[in-house]
Amino acid sequence: MSFALLAACNSVPKAVGSIDLTSPDGANRMTFILTEAGGPMYSLDHKDISVLEPGVLGFELRGTVKYQGLVYKGDKIEKPDEVPPYMFTEGFEIIGTETASSDETWEPVWGEESSIRNHYNELLVKLRHKADGKLMDIRFRCFNDGLGFRYEFPDGQPLVHFVIKEEMTEFNCAQDNTAWWIPGDYDSQEYQYACTTLTGIPAEFKKHTNQYNSSTTLYSTSCVQTSLQMKTPEGLYVNIHEAALVDYSCMHLVADGKKLRAHLTPDAQGWKGRLETPCVTPWRTVQVAESAEEQLASRLVLNLNEPCALEDVSWIHPVKYMGVWWEMIAGAGNWHYTDAASVKLDDFDYSTATPNGRHSANNDNVRKYIDFAAGNGFDALLVEGWNIGWEEWANCNKDYVFDFVTPYPDFDIDALNGYAHSKGIRLVMHHETSSSVRNYERHMEEAYTLMNRYGYDAVKSGYVGDILPIGEHHYGQWMNNHYLYAVTEAAKHHIMVNAHEAVRPTGLCRTYPNLIGNESAMGTEYQAFGGIAPGHTAILPFTRLNGGPMDYTPGIFEQNLKEWCGNDSHVNSTICGQLALYVTMYSPLQMAADTPEHYSRFMDAFQFIRDVAIDWSESRYLYAEPQDYLVIARKDKNSDSWFLGGVTDEQTRTFSVALDFLEEGRNYEATIYKDAPDADCYENPQAYAIEKSVVSLQDKLELTMVPGGGFAVSFKAL
Amino acid sequence: MSFALLAACNSVPKAVGSIDLTSPDGANRMTFILTEAGGPMYSLDHKDISVLEPGVLGFELRGTVKYQGLVYKGDKIEKPDEVPPYMFTEGFEIIGTETASSDETWEPVWGEESSIRNHYNELLVKLRHKADGKLMDIRFRCFNDGLGFRYEFPDGQPLVHFVIKEEMTEFNCAQDNTAWWIPGDYDSQEYQYACTTLTGIPAEFKKHTNQYNSSTTLYSTSCVQTSLQMKTPEGLYVNIHEAALVDYSCMHLVADGKKLRAHLTPDAQGWKGRLETPCVTPWRTVQVAESAEEQLASRLVLNLNEPCALEDVSWIHPVKYMGVWWEMIAGAGNWHYTDAASVKLDDFDYSTATPNGRHSANNDNVRKYIDFAAGNGFDALLVEGWNIGWEEWANCNKDYVFDFVTPYPDFDIDALNGYAHSKGIRLVMHHETSSSVRNYERHMEEAYTLMNRYGYDAVKSGYVGDILPIGEHHYGQWMNNHYLYAVTEAAKHHIMVNAHEAVRPTGLCRTYPNLIGNESAMGTEYQAFGGIAPGHTAILPFTRLNGGPMDYTPGIFEQNLKEWCGNDSHVNSTICGQLALYVTMYSPLQMAADTPEHYSRFMDAFQFIRDVAIDWSESRYLYAEPQDYLVIARKDKNSDSWFLGGVTDEQTRTFSVALDFLEEGRNYEATIYKDAPDADCYENPQAYAIEKSVVSLQDKLELTMVPGGGFAVSFKAL
Repeated sequence: MSFALLAACNSVPKAVGSIDLTSPDGANRMTFILTEAGGPMYSLDHKDISVLEPGVLGFELRGTVKYQGLVYKGDKIEKPDEVPPYMFTEGFEIIGTETASSDETWEPVWGEESSIRNHYNELLVKLRHKADGKLMDIRFRCFNDGLGFRYEFPDGQPLVHFVIKEEMTEFNCAQDNTAWWIPGDYDSQEYQYACTTLTGIPAEFKKHTNQYNSSTTLYSTSCVQTSLQMKTPEGLYVNIHEAALVDYSCMHLVADGKKLRAHLTPDAQGWKGRLETPCVTPWRTVQVAESAEEQLASRLVLNLNEPCALEDVSWIHPVKYMGVWWEMIAGAGNWHYTDAASVKLDDFDYSTATPNGRHSANNDNVRKYIDFAAGNGFDALLVEGWNIGWEEWANCNKDYVFDFVTPYPDFDIDALNGYAHSKGIRLVMHHETSSSVRNYERHMEEAYTLMNRYGYDAVKSGYVGDILPIGEHHYGQWMNNHYLYAVTEAAKHHIMVNAHEAVRPTGLCRTYPNLIGNESAMGTEYQAFGGIAPGHTAILPFTRLNGGPMDYTPGIFEQNLKEWCGNDSHVNSTICGQLALYVTMYSPLQMAADTPEHYSRFMDAFQFIRDVAIDWSESRYLYAEPQDYLVIARKDKNSDSWFLGGVTDEQTRTFSVALDFLEEGRNYEATIYKDAPDADCYENPQAYAIEKSVVSLQDKLELTMVPGGGFAVSFKAL
Repeated sequence: MSFALLAACNSVPKAVGSIDLTSPDGANRMTFILTEAGGPMYSLDHKDISVLEPGVLGFELRGTVKYQGLVYKGDKIEKPDEVPPYMFTEGFEIIGTETASSDETWEPVWGEESSIRNHYNELLVKLRHKADGKLMDIRFRCFNDGLGFRYEFPDGQPLVHFVIKEEMTEFNCAQDNTAWWIPGDYDSQEYQYACTTLTGIPAEFKKHTNQYNSSTTLYSTSCVQTSLQMKTPEGLYVNIHEAALVDYSCMHLVADGKKLRAHLTPDAQGWKGRLETPCVTPWRTVQVAESAEEQLASRLVLNLNEPCALEDVSWIHPVKYMGVWWEMIAGAGNWHYTDAASVKLDDFDYSTATPNGRHSANNDNVRKYIDFAAGNGFDALLVEGWNIGWEEWANCNKDYVFDFVTPYPDFDIDALNGYAHSKGIRLVMHHETSSSVRNYERHMEEAYTLMNRYGYDAVKSGYVGDILPIGEHHYGQWMNNHYLYAVTEAAKHHIMVNAHEAVRPTGLCRTYPNLIGNESAMGTEYQAFGGIAPGHTAILPFTRLNGGPMDYTPGIFEQNLKEWCGNDSHVNSTICGQLALYVTMYSPLQMAADTPEHYSRFMDAFQFIRDVAIDWSESRYLYAEPQDYLVIARKDKNSDSWFLGGVTDEQTRTFSVALDFLEEGRNYEATIYKDAPDADCYENPQAYAIEKSVVSLQDKLELTMVPGGGFAVSFKAL
C-alpha cells in the first residue's frame, strides 16, 4: 500500500509518513505509518492483495502508583489512587530508522529438516514519545513467508519499570477471513477447533467450548487463541501467532469484526505484564502463504527465536516411547495407590496403607511394558503414578501435593531402572505438579538429581488444575517464567522436558532444544474423555505445531474403550489413521500410547510404529487443507528411508501421490498401511490392509482414506 | 460464669449446656457453651472477674465451587457461581469430650530463663455438624497465666479440603478495656502504638497510621494487630495473640464495640486460608495477669508451641553483633554500588560500571568495622549491600532482583571472611529478597551453600516492598509458609535466621530455635525516618516480644543525625536509654547498631554493651506499665553476673530498686550507667554518669530516668 493510497483511505488516520519493508522475494510488503497524531501503525500486503489494513501498534501502560501509604476518604481507608493509564499508542516521533538483511542457514538439533534458511529484510523504527522522551523501538522482519515484529524498549531512557495494562497491537485483517480457532482461555488450550469467518466467531463461540476444562477461564465470546490459521477470500493462508514468548504474558486475539486485537493474559490483579528496560516483547508473527502446503513449510516462528543457547547438545535426542499411561486415562487403572481421602506426605504411612489394587505403576506391570517396549525397538517408557501423593491433587488448593522423589511402595525405582537399562530402555520421569508451582520449584533440584542418579534423561511434567497461588494463570508472565525456568534448570542436569498443560510453544525449542515436547492442545487423551471429531489432527499442524512439537500420544489400536474397560468414550480414528500421525504430527518425541495387549493383536500394523523415523532431514507437504486432510512425506535423518502419512476428516478421500520425492535411480520397498474399503472410524476402525511393493520416483500411489482414517507408507531404500 | 448465670443474661444465646475448665491454680476459668442452635461459644473469668463474655467459635467456610467449566448468562461468560458460604458456627452437637492435665518443665536453647514450666489443664470438645457429619474439635488449655485454644479438624470425615472465608472467633471483652494497639495491616507492622479504649479505636485510628509504610494495606479503621495488650477497669492485664502460626493466615482483630473479632489476612482472591484435614489452626491466646510484671513473665505463647524439632542444636548460639548498616539507614552511605537506573543481573557489567563512591559495604570500611568489633568482644558483623542488585529493588515488580551470591566488585567475600575469622568475628549474611519470594527460593540452596563455604552461620533476611506475585500479602498463608520454609531449609545448613518484615512471631522459635530474631515491628531504623516517641520500647515487650525476640538494633549513641549526615530526623533516646534496651528488650541477637566512630567518643558507656550478657538463666520483671516504663533484672546464663535495665517514656521517673534478686551472702561490683540530671532525649541525650559501688542483696538503688532516658547496671559477682 503506497502512501498515496493510504491517504485516500477514509477509515485510516491521516499519516505523516510511511516506510516500506519488503520480503527478499518482494512478495510481501509491510508498510510502517506514523499518523498525524504520532501513532505508529503498520499494514501488510502480499503481491497486490492487502492482507492487513493499517493496524495500531503500541501499549496502554499502567499509570504510576504513587506510594503514598494511605488514602483516607472521609474516615474510610481507600487504596491509593491509580494514576490514569498511559496511552503509549500515539504522540511519538521517529528519531531514527535502521535497515538490515540477513540470509543464514542453521541446523536444528532435531526437526522436520536438517537445515533451515532464515532469510529476511529488517527495519528498526526508533520512536520517541514527544511529551516525556520515553523510547520505544519497533523491529520488523519481512520474510518470504510472512512478517514478524516486536517492540523493543531501549536502555538509558525515562521508561525503566513499567506495567502493561494492555498491548494494543492490532491485526487489521483486510477481509472477513475464514478462521480455524479455539476459544481464548487463560488456563486451557484443550479444545476442538471451530471454523467460521472472523465476524462469525461470537455466534459459534458457545458451541465450541467444552465441559472438560475444569479450570477454564474464558473471558469473552470473541476471543481466540493463537496460532490462528486463517484463509482469505483470495485463497491466501494467513497465520497469526507469536515467537519467543519469554518473560511476558501469552497473547490472545479478540475479534472486533474482521479486526483482531491483542489481549494478553492477566496476572491476579488484572495487569498484563511487568517489564524493565532494556527489554523486548515476543515477536508477533503474520505468516502468509499462497497454499496450505506452503504454510506448513514455513519456519518463520523458529527463525524468530534466538539460536541454541546450550553449548553441549550431545545429550539431546529424539525419543520413541511407550507409557504406563493410557490404561489410567481410559480408566482401566489408577495413578493413586490407596483410596485414602486425605494424604499428608509428611505423615501418611504408605507402607501400612491399604492398596486399592488398581495402581498401574506397579513393578509387575512396569516390567511387562519394559519387556514389550524393549522387544519392539523403543527407546523409553513413561511411567505415571509412580510417586506418592496422587490420592488428591489438582484443584485441592494443596501446596505440598507431591515431593517428586518418593516412589509408591510397589514401584521399586532402583530395580525397575536397572531392569529397563539392561534391556536398552530408559524410563521417562513424570512430574505432575498439580499446578502447585512453588512446591515444584522447591523440589526441582532434588527431583532432577534423582533422575540423574537413576538414569532418567527425560521428564514429562504436568500442570493440571488451578495455578497456586490462585489468581495466577497458566499463560501469564508469572507462569511463562516458570516453564522456561524448568527447562533451563533441566538443561543443567542434561534432562529433556515434555511439559503438558504449559503455555503453547512459540519456537523456544530452537533456543532450548531440550524442550522436546509440549501438550498445549487437545491430545489423544480426549478420545477417552468423550472422543475427538476427525479432522482435529488435520488442523493441529497449522496451529498448535506452528510453535513447536506436540506430545500428541498417538497409536491407539483399540477404539472400543467400553469393551476394554467400561469407558463410554470411543476413539474416533482407524488404526491407519493412527499410524499416519507418526508422519503428519511432527515431533521428536513420539509415543505408542496403547497397551502391549492391544498392540499384540495387530503386530503387522504395529510394524509401522517400529519402523517409522522420529527425526528428519527433509519434509514434503504434498496435500493439505486445514481441518480437512494432510498428506506429508518425510525423509529419515539417519537413513535413506522415506515415510508418508495421510489423514482425513469425516470425508472419504483419495489421493494420487507421486513419489517424486524419492531419490532418483533408486528402488524402494514400499510397505503400505491403508484403511480397508469398509473401514470407518466409528463402526469398523480396525479394518486395514498392508501391501508391499517395490517403487521408484516415477511411481504414483493411489491411496484412499475412510472417514476418520488415514494411511501410512514406509519406503525402505533397496 | 455458671450455666445459671449465663442463662440469665439476655444478650447471650440460650445455652443447652456448658463445660468448665479451670487453670491449675483455679484462678482462670474457661466455660465452653453449646447454644440451643448448636453454636460453640466460650467465656473466660479470672477469679470473680469476667474477662471475656461468651464469644462465638467457628468459621465461615467457602461453599464448594462446582467445577462446571463454564457458565453462560445469555451470551455472556460468567464465572461459575459460588455456592453460598457455609456457616461453621452452629448446627453442632457434642460427640465427646476429653480432659487432660500436663505439668512439665522444658529448657529452651536460649531465652529469658534456663527452664520454663508448662502447666495446664486441657479440654477437648469434639463437635459434629449435625446436617452433614463434618467434624471440628476445639482444644482448650487453661494455664495460670491464661487460656489457649485452637480448632482441630480430624481425619477420616466428610470435610477434607476446605477454604476459609473468615475465622469467626470472637474475643468478647467484658469491659471497654484500655488497649495498646497498632493499626491492622496486611503488609506492615511498623507503627507506633496508640493507647485508647476498645471503643475508642476508630476515632484515633487515622492519627496512628503513618506515611513510611509504602506498601501499607490497611482495610478498616477498627482493626488492630496482635499481640494486643489490654488492661481492664479492674486492673487485669489481658493480652490476645496467637501461638504456632503454621500454614495459616495471620490473625488481626476487628473491634466491634468492646468485642474483638478475628480477621485473617486474605490471599489475592480474598480467601483466608486453604486447609486439608487432618489439620489444626494456630492457638488463640488470651493471657491474663494481675500485674504488668506478671504479664511480662508469661510464657504461655512459647508453651503452646511444639517442642524443638531440631535434633542437633549445638550450632545455635546467641549473637552480639555490629553492622555496616546504620550509616546507610541514616543516609551517610548507600547499599548500591552504582547509580545506574536499571540493572539486569545477567547482563550488567559491574566490573566496568562507575561506582557512586558512597557504597558502604566496601573492603576498607568492612575491615574497619571488623577491627572495632573484634577489639570489643563482639561475635559478628552484619554487612548489608554486599551483593549486586541494590540499584533497584523494592516495589519495582522485579522478579530477578538479587542472586544472593554475587558480591559487588569492592566486596572481597573471601578475603573479608578470612580477615574476620582471623580476628574471631563471623560475618552475618544479608538476604534482602525485595519480596520477590520465588526468586529467593530459587536461589536459596545456593545462597545457603555459599554461606557454609565462607563460614557465615547467620542470615538477616528482608521482605521490603510488595510481595510478588502482587496480590499476596506479607501475613497471608502463602507467605507464612515461605518464612517457615526459609527457617527449616536454613536449619539443614546450620544457619540461624533473623527475618525482617516477616510475619510477627508466635513462639515458633521454641520449635525452630535457629529463628533467633525477627523485626516485625517499628525498630530503631525509624529513629532515622522521623524519630520514635519515647515509650515505644516500654510497650514492645508486652506486644511484639510476646511471640519471640526482636532484632530491635539498639545502641545509638549519636542522636544528632543532622550534624552527622544531614538527616533531619533525631534519635529520641538518651545514651543510657539505649543501654537499657540490652536488658529490657530481650533477644538472643543483640546489635550495637551505631558506628565505630560514634562509639569511640563514649567508650566508658560502651563498656556496658561489651559486658552485657545475651542469654539468661533468670529474669525478674520489677516494675512495668505498658508504654510507660520497664525495670527488668536478668541473670547471665553463663556467669553469676546480673544486669538491670530501665526505660521510661516522656516522664522523668525514679525507681528504688531492691537488689534482692542477687545471690545471698555475695557481694557484687555494680557499675551504674544513668542519665545525668540535666539529660533528656531531645536536647541533651549524651549526658550520663557512671558510678561503681559494691552492693549486696540488702541494698537498694535509687535510679532516675529523664524523659526518653533509662539506666543500665551491671552486677559482677565478687
